[in-house]
Amino acid sequence: MKIGIVGYGNLGRGVECAVKENPDMELVAVFTRRDPSKVKIQLPNVPVVHVDEAKNWVGKIDVMILCGGSATDLPKQTPEFAKMFNVIDSFDTHAKIPEHFANVDAAAKANGHVAIISVGWDPGMFSLIRAYANAILPDGKDYTFWGKGVSQGHSDAIRRVKGVKNAKQYTVPIDAALDAVRSGQNPELTTRQKHLRECYVVLEEGADAAEVENAIKTMPNYFADYDTIVNFISEEELLTKHAGLAHGGFVIRSGKTGMQKENNHIIEFNLKLDSNPEFTTSVLVAYARAAYRLNQEGNNGCKTVFDIAPAYLAAQDGAELRAHLL
Amino acid sequence: MKIGIVGYGNLGRGVECAVKENPDMELVAVFTRRDPSKVKIQLPNVPVVHVDEAKNWVGKIDVMILCGGSATDLPKQTPEFAKMFNVIDSFDTHAKIPEHFANVDAAAKANGHVAIISVGWDPGMFSLIRAYANAILPDGKDYTFWGKGVSQGHSDAIRRVKGVKNAKQYTVPIDAALDAVRSGQNPELTTRQKHLRECYVVLEEGADAAEVENAIKTMPNYFADYDTIVNFISEEELLTKHAGLAHGGFVIRSGKTGMQKENNHIIEFNLKLDSNPEFTTSVLVAYARAAYRLNQEGNNGCKTVFDIAPAYLAAQDGAELRAHLL
Repeated sequence: MKIGIVGYGNLGRGVECAVKENPDMELVAVFTRRDPSKVKIQLPNVPVVHVDEAKNWVGKIDVMILCGGSATDLPKQTPEFAKMFNVIDSFDTHAKIPEHFANVDAAAKANGHVAIISVGWDPGMFSLIRAYANAILPDGKDYTFWGKGVSQGHSDAIRRVKGVKNAKQYTVPIDAALDAVRSGQNPELTTRQKHLRECYVVLEEGADAAEVENAIKTMPNYFADYDTIVNFISEEELLTKHAGLAHGGFVIRSGKTGMQKENNHIIEFNLKLDSNPEFTTSVLVAYARAAYRLNQEGNNGCKTVFDIAPAYLAAQDGAELRAHLL
Repeated sequence: MKIGIVGYGNLGRGVECAVKENPDMELVAVFTRRDPSKVKIQLPNVPVVHVDEAKNWVGKIDVMILCGGSATDLPKQTPEFAKMFNVIDSFDTHAKIPEHFANVDAAAKANGHVAIISVGWDPGMFSLIRAYANAILPDGKDYTFWGKGVSQGHSDAIRRVKGVKNAKQYTVPIDAALDAVRSGQNPELTTRQKHLRECYVVLEEGADAAEVENAIKTMPNYFADYDTIVNFISEEELLTKHAGLAHGGFVIRSGKTGMQKENNHIIEFNLKLDSNPEFTTSVLVAYARAAYRLNQEGNNGCKTVFDIAPAYLAAQDGAELRAHLL
């Protein structure tokens, strides 16, 4: 299976690692918008090519893994590349998924390709668990918690505050809320009860710490509805102690069965990830295998994790799966 | 969707409850080997019919849910019923799955039906998680823990000990082992380190407690390799305090990514179930929906959870799933 990467940031690097773990896959090229001669990748003997050259690789790449951002890159790139290749993306702007799906579906269908969008852990693995758990326990309630991990959007929001030189923001799930959910009480939880926001902030010289703290804590949408902790640290500490890419989260469904609804059941899925981008790309690569196989079977169009049978992701065949994993 | 139940024990009763939760399903008949006039079911206006009459219901039932045991019932029943109906079973004799699959596949294919075998939570949901987690993290290690819950096989083994009148055995996962796995150490765990066996035993009059305890603790395969706790109690206490059907368990995969394998990830799925049979049948019923839809699309043959895309289980359509659960 010949894999191409479009975009060489954290996700692109993650795909490089993940492909190496799968002996049935080969990375054939990395496509970039930058000057290819200035992009150094980790694997030897893999060409780095300008993204405008991608059209010359049609027929030489089985699945293109799109590693751009959801805000501006993927809405354009995924439909465009789906005309030329089978593609996978990790599009995660929830409200725009129906529109993105329709655009990608049209492009993929018209050209006989398979596109799988919104792959990763949320959306992705968490979505799968929500779908399975809802189908199994129709009378129940879903809870999703994220963290502990850095939120890029919230970190960016802090950096836009006057007087802030640099910042990282951790989203932290609150144990008491998790415990209440796991107890089967099916609690109604406010935004504030579910997550805490922990900020590490480097001030610009002469900035007023109290003012900055207040500006962060009262920021609408991002922080005002949460309990927010602001820690001021040096830039050196930020770069050394808060450079990690760890993340994780929890999906829990609590639901009732029985003629009198007398029995409660808790389905919990949780992830504890040392590297958010490397785990995300491990999921992308597994779905690349599915896209390739589905296309080989004559399928086309846009799909999500809901539409893919788990066997399509596995390196093993059906008999092996039944013998060892069932 | 018209559902039939074959076998009316704990699982049959569970299917009855689960069908009630799903407005797109209707229970049309319960089939039993007993005298139908002596079988009282929970729902009104549903006929109880002798199992030999099932052939007269061909065309009136979309999916037959087989609620027999794996030891002797299902190996015969599933292939036989797959000739007449789409079927679901919860066959869980691991070593015999390949043989069962082949028998059921032949019967289902020859008659244009869909059969989904080994559905439930283990095999079933746990198998799914193992498959997804293995595909995502090829370089890792799987751990499965069961409990706390009653093991029927181990309870039966105790009841066969001379001097024992009645007994229940709980399989209990050991917290220290779970913690070691969750820490990402990828420990090698012995049988003894993973699970504890807790027994509640009612002695026959005049039986020697010490002898019974020794006979249990040294029983090969069942108890000798475990730390086993034997509690002697009255029959009244056994029937009142140990009649529950609660169960649960954990599937954890711990795996590494990165060019130097420097990052570890923990994928954990766990279940805490008030009623093992009611949860199992909630899964069976969700897969009944899938069997029906797959058959409507012209599919046939034997399948397992690995072969079914999650969307087939859901009451919602694709657009709803993408909008609300992705």
